[in-house]
Amino acid sequence: MKKIAVIGLGLIGGSLALELKKNSWATIYGIDKNEEHLKKALELGIIFQKADLSIIPEMDVVIIAVPVNVIPQITIEVLNLINENALVFDVGSTKLAVCDAIKDHKNREHFVALHPIAGTEFSGPEAAIYDLFTGKVNIICERERSNPVMVDRAMAIFENLKMKNVFMDSASQHDTHIAYVSHLSHISSFMLGKTVLEIEKDEKNIFNMAGSGFASTVRLAKSNPETWTPIFMQNRDNLLKSLEEYIKNLNQFKDILTRKSADDVLNIMENTNRIKDVLAGIKHE
Amino acid sequence: MKKIAVIGLGLIGGSLALELKKNSWATIYGIDKNEEHLKKALELGIIFQKADLSIIPEMDVVIIAVPVNVIPQITIEVLNLINENALVFDVGSTKLAVCDAIKDHKNREHFVALHPIAGTEFSGPEAAIYDLFTGKVNIICERERSNPVMVDRAMAIFENLKMKNVFMDSASQHDTHIAYVSHLSHISSFMLGKTVLEIEKDEKNIFNMAGSGFASTVRLAKSNPETWTPIFMQNRDNLLKSLEEYIKNLNQFKDILTRKSADDVLNIMENTNRIKDVLAGIKHE
Repeated sequence: MKKIAVIGLGLIGGSLALELKKNSWATIYGIDKNEEHLKKALELGIIFQKADLSIIPEMDVVIIAVPVNVIPQITIEVLNLINENALVFDVGSTKLAVCDAIKDHKNREHFVALHPIAGTEFSGPEAAIYDLFTGKVNIICERERSNPVMVDRAMAIFENLKMKNVFMDSASQHDTHIAYVSHLSHISSFMLGKTVLEIEKDEKNIFNMAGSGFASTVRLAKSNPETWTPIFMQNRDNLLKSLEEYIKNLNQFKDILTRKSADDVLNIMENTNRIKDVLAGIKHE
Repeated sequence: MKKIAVIGLGLIGGSLALELKKNSWATIYGIDKNEEHLKKALELGIIFQKADLSIIPEMDVVIIAVPVNVIPQITIEVLNLINENALVFDVGSTKLAVCDAIKDHKNREHFVALHPIAGTEFSGPEAAIYDLFTGKVNIICERERSNPVMVDRAMAIFENLKMKNVFMDSASQHDTHIAYVSHLSHISSFMLGKTVLEIEKDEKNIFNMAGSGFASTVRLAKSNPETWTPIFMQNRDNLLKSLEEYIKNLNQFKDILTRKSADDVLNIMENTNRIKDVLAGIKHE
């Protein structure tokens, strides 16, 4: 029987634990500094038993699913403790900090830098669900720094979850692109929520009018601040660049609206409609 | 058999026609200046037959579902032609312009100023679907200017679609609130799409990483520019006000990020999480 430790039993760690238990018949050991989370994960059948880092030497796979500011240190501790066949990966939304922290570790090749891109706006063990990863993409970075056997095992785990594995050269490349496509969306959504809460004094109107598209645009503003603050701080430089572009575009749109140029408004929206094909994977030559 | 004319057979007009045919066994006459739309609506069984404004005097109900810049003029033409029992309403996303245009019309009381708040990012007769309106809110403005019998009939139609009717005093009040809650979301989403298309040179990355929440935040950027340009132009003043607030909040967030204040980032997000309860209709005292 395979033994898997999941460190951090939130939305992502919990959902991975559920799937791995189902798909690989592994025994799942849960590690979390939050006793409530451990208790809840046990109750929900997400983990087989609670544990601490002392079990790491017995594990076949160690999955690190804690906030990204804690990942580098825990990954080092885990790599210090693993046996010679163990696979280690984290599932954080930034990759540069952890890759940097362990780059000279003697067990570096046991670690695979990856990011299964999936999530919901919910958090904690209660948010763990089956099929969270189905059909989504798992990014694997700097594969040449990992033992090929470990890369193979990691890929098999995510293929088993019906994910598509995609390679990226460097961790910094991953962080740049994920800032543009994912992290910026979260800021855009949080600030939209903040603006509407401030400007719309009567919350009843927000509730009544949310069918207008607001609900989906603001969905990410329900996300867990404990998860997202360290992501924003770690990926700050990339985020600032994309945030500046976003604000520039909003100011440009405001100017166009101010001078009542309907043609420009129409053109900008028509050009942006291209996102429909991009998201559907349709290429324009 | 009741006779209903639907002018404009796009997403909203088409979906209303589908529901009304099913729920009221009415005969639906379609009017659209786009011959392709008429043909498609006939093929899809959305309308019973195509027609033009000459049939208006025979209609029991006339529904106007064209872009908001065209609504005032068409509503006047329709009110000129209706019989003494007819109900007329438009379903546009702004209400001030149409209410202003017809305020002194001799048949003003046949008109009900309403806005069924529902939609998707798709457009045209092919986008028409059942259950688009189920569980959503229909706003009715300046009801005192409509004949109570007409208000009753309009309310019954939307209750029949399983919508909740909500009253607002004035058309301008509607336009203000809908700018904050709906129209701003569209701009936020369109500009997010524009920014990501510009900054992320490799469209493959957008496709691969869209599972990260980007897809839902950018969904409205697929919306029809022909529908939304006139809405933005008509509701320009309210929109500019909300857009300024949004940009102010984004700049504030950028400043906080620039000076690396993790506590402020966390606080802002925690406060904004309140949107979760507001959207769920949970009140805080």
